[in-house]
Amino acid sequence: MWRYEHPTEIIFGKSVLQNLGDYLEQSNIKKALLIATNSSVKNGTTADIVNKSAGRILDVVSGIEPNPTIENVEMCAKKARELEVDYIIALGGGSVIDCAKAVCAVVSENCTAIDLMEGKNITKALPLIAIPTVSGASSEVTGTSVISWKEKDLKRAFTSPLLYPKTAVIDPELTYSCPKHVTAISGIDIIAHSLDSLGSVKSNPLTEHFAVQAAKLAFENLEAAVNGNAEAKDQLAFAAVLAGFAFTQTGTTASHACSYILTAKYDIPHAEACAFTLDSWFKINAEYKPLLEIHAKNIGFSNVDELVNALNDLKIKLGLRTTLGELEIPIEDLEIIVRHSLDAANMKNNIAPVDEAMVRNVFRSK
Amino acid sequence: MWRYEHPTEIIFGKSVLQNLGDYLEQSNIKKALLIATNSSVKNGTTADIVNKSAGRILDVVSGIEPNPTIENVEMCAKKARELEVDYIIALGGGSVIDCAKAVCAVVSENCTAIDLMEGKNITKALPLIAIPTVSGASSEVTGTSVISWKEKDLKRAFTSPLLYPKTAVIDPELTYSCPKHVTAISGIDIIAHSLDSLGSVKSNPLTEHFAVQAAKLAFENLEAAVNGNAEAKDQLAFAAVLAGFAFTQTGTTASHACSYILTAKYDIPHAEACAFTLDSWFKINAEYKPLLEIHAKNIGFSNVDELVNALNDLKIKLGLRTTLGELEIPIEDLEIIVRHSLDAANMKNNIAPVDEAMVRNVFRSK
Repeated sequence: MWRYEHPTEIIFGKSVLQNLGDYLEQSNIKKALLIATNSSVKNGTTADIVNKSAGRILDVVSGIEPNPTIENVEMCAKKARELEVDYIIALGGGSVIDCAKAVCAVVSENCTAIDLMEGKNITKALPLIAIPTVSGASSEVTGTSVISWKEKDLKRAFTSPLLYPKTAVIDPELTYSCPKHVTAISGIDIIAHSLDSLGSVKSNPLTEHFAVQAAKLAFENLEAAVNGNAEAKDQLAFAAVLAGFAFTQTGTTASHACSYILTAKYDIPHAEACAFTLDSWFKINAEYKPLLEIHAKNIGFSNVDELVNALNDLKIKLGLRTTLGELEIPIEDLEIIVRHSLDAANMKNNIAPVDEAMVRNVFRSK
Repeated sequence: MWRYEHPTEIIFGKSVLQNLGDYLEQSNIKKALLIATNSSVKNGTTADIVNKSAGRILDVVSGIEPNPTIENVEMCAKKARELEVDYIIALGGGSVIDCAKAVCAVVSENCTAIDLMEGKNITKALPLIAIPTVSGASSEVTGTSVISWKEKDLKRAFTSPLLYPKTAVIDPELTYSCPKHVTAISGIDIIAHSLDSLGSVKSNPLTEHFAVQAAKLAFENLEAAVNGNAEAKDQLAFAAVLAGFAFTQTGTTASHACSYILTAKYDIPHAEACAFTLDSWFKINAEYKPLLEIHAKNIGFSNVDELVNALNDLKIKLGLRTTLGELEIPIEDLEIIVRHSLDAANMKNNIAPVDEAMVRNVFRSK
């Protein structure tokens, strides 16, 4: 048995952002706060959007950190309360959209970001329009927000049907100015989400269909996108939607479970940290779930081995580190890494049952 | 630019119907009316469901005609009003689910079925749980209802975001007892919806993914399903979901436009009538939209010609009529058929612009 429900309306196309003003008018949105990435403030995109909103966007907040914090959420929520807005618009990458989702909940619940971090149930949330400027995290089509509480060294993912953006406005042109390394690492995130989703105990024929198509498009287009090809960037924007459709239903699995400690302890970017063990886990999962051989074919490879080799080649081409040495992780840290990886909640979500020796071997093989 | 929104929650799996009682309880549904196909009353399925509902299903209505009428809608609406239900459950094929959708609107709007037929705007509708017993029409995942007003010789399709079922409970086991010819003709409906969707001016990368997968699964499994293979029937149930995801966004196109007069004037079943010209239109559309060659490959054929030939072979194998002679349509009727086909609203939805000569040639080629 499987379930599927996806409440976000998708509006996709080059230059669709130009119609945002009309959309706000048609949807009768009168008082919105725009939470935007610093670069879109600098390059004039936010000013352009505000101008086109005919007074419907009351103010802009920026300065959201790469791993959005409770302070970021509180800053935005304060502004939203002052202005008594009834809508939030997020323009940016996963961090900005994740932050905006938490703001939607905090304002509507009339609670603090710390309340959320401490487990407060989300029963209502302001509606959100999410406009991604990067193709990767897929936060524009997922019901999850990840917020950090630095003081307590805590990072928490909230998932709720109420956190799905009401509308995702995906204008691939916004990704054209993305720096090369951001395009690369975010594209790898699409592959990590897709392959992790295929290895989830919760995957179903529909999520597998999304994940296979997402991985296929990402493998086909990532290098060209990094090299500046606009059509390839359009395809990545679509691949991110498909990957989001998949993993928001299934959750992520072993490669994500093994990534958190790498990011927290060694400051390795999220997607690079996921990609680090992704090949190994896909191979392990394929032994447990033979259907992955067919999926590998549909992704465009002759078998799982070829896919895994192509993934490793791609990582190297894109400048990602693929050995413990390159990550400068001392072998003595291995046991801490293994323990943390095993303890991550999404490890239980992995289709192949995972034990300590397995995680140790995966890291040792690097 | 394209838009996508799909509000229906899908619950899919063998025997999921057994959990309906729990679902009603969890969803706090207290007063529901079950609108069911006659056969499910006879074979005891409805009694079983009512028993498991712990009093949450107040009554059962059946006797819905194959092309549901305004009288069918009124009969169900009367019962729903008497019982003051807050939920409708539909168990059956496309006709029963279509009828139930109209009931949801009529009861909530406190209007008559004739008001709807006369163009009343739908602003609210009772929530609906749709449980298909046949894989084909995909009404369980679409926002459309087709109702007939026999007295006026009128058949109207209503489409509204409010007509999407709240939940589709898809239990492939319900299709296992489907008669061979119903499985066959309904399966052809899946192919007709998919190929028509691929030929729509409104098709987009997402609907094309759904349509390609739906057509692929239907081509791969239809014969085996007709021959009683349970796994093939499971795949068809999934294919119907995918086809519905596609055509509810794009609408149908030329083969459907050419079918209505065949059904109305010569009583040819809907799917057989669509299939009659489907091959020709797919070929015509492929000349206009070369991407259909790639789609034909992804559906499992080497090119469009091979797909079209396979479709014709399949029609013959399944006992569908493929010539005007077999349909007993006199050649003198051709001009009426051409005019009616051209006038159908979804003809404008066809990617290749269609003129009179084109329609005439398609029918003459049969």
